[in-house]
Amino acid sequence: MTFTFEKPSADKAELEGAGAFTPRFDAGGLVTAVVTDVRDGELLMVAHMNAESLALTVETGIAHYYSRSRGRIWKKGESSGNLQTVHELRTDCDQDAVWLKVSVAGHDATCHTGRRSCFYRIVTKRDSNAVLEITDDERHFDPDTVYSDGGTK
Amino acid sequence: MTFTFEKPSADKAELEGAGAFTPRFDAGGLVTAVVTDVRDGELLMVAHMNAESLALTVETGIAHYYSRSRGRIWKKGESSGNLQTVHELRTDCDQDAVWLKVSVAGHDATCHTGRRSCFYRIVTKRDSNAVLEITDDERHFDPDTVYSDGGTK
Repeated sequence: MTFTFEKPSADKAELEGAGAFTPRFDAGGLVTAVVTDVRDGELLMVAHMNAESLALTVETGIAHYYSRSRGRIWKKGESSGNLQTVHELRTDCDQDAVWLKVSVAGHDATCHTGRRSCFYRIVTKRDSNAVLEITDDERHFDPDTVYSDGGTK
Repeated sequence: MTFTFEKPSADKAELEGAGAFTPRFDAGGLVTAVVTDVRDGELLMVAHMNAESLALTVETGIAHYYSRSRGRIWKKGESSGNLQTVHELRTDCDQDAVWLKVSVAGHDATCHTGRRSCFYRIVTKRDSNAVLEITDDERHFDPDTVYSDGGTK
């Protein structure tokens, strides 16, 4: 990592203004990352970043996350080829979340199931239950083939 | 709360398929909520929901979150009038995040600073620093007036 982030200001106005980007990492050292397609704004995925993955993303322009399940930096698409080029990076008012507008290489798919977006299901209320309905079942790649080496997504 | 959610399945295929919505709350009992404007897809905010606020959202069609700072249910807009009507609710492949497409009442503003979106700043790289640039400074309401009672956002 070639640069680090300064500590967030305790002053609210400073935190909400222009100036240094001082991400507010949570107790686990993470911020939330929301990822949309720069083409049409579709929400593709939600993930997390630690300081190192956020710095790598800013420096290289390629999205890097922190995988909580694997406990390590995760260059999205390193196995599948579905790398994400970051066209714009934003942060929110209290700097604990970032928004990446990306274009997706490879299969133009972000979800490990092979779908374009991880958000392929609608939640609906049926009587007193909440049920899921699949609205996109188009697979852009075959997960069994792409991840056959047990690699990351 | 008139309904509760079933426990998530340990079976990955079941978790990723159609059927019961079984949100995977984290150790703090929360899922991440991404909120976009149903009108044009603009990302408005990122927040968190516990089981109760998620159930309230599904039941009433009005967005309820869990405020980590205040440690309680937060009906978005209860002070400002900027209530969010949920037009569509989605979840992601591992059911630990939800996506709300909403329309915003009141001032058509979501950020407590009075702006339409909390993501009003771009992160750019300047030499070896990451700096923030404000791209939207239009205030839809005056926070000092709207929150003068110290109420919630």
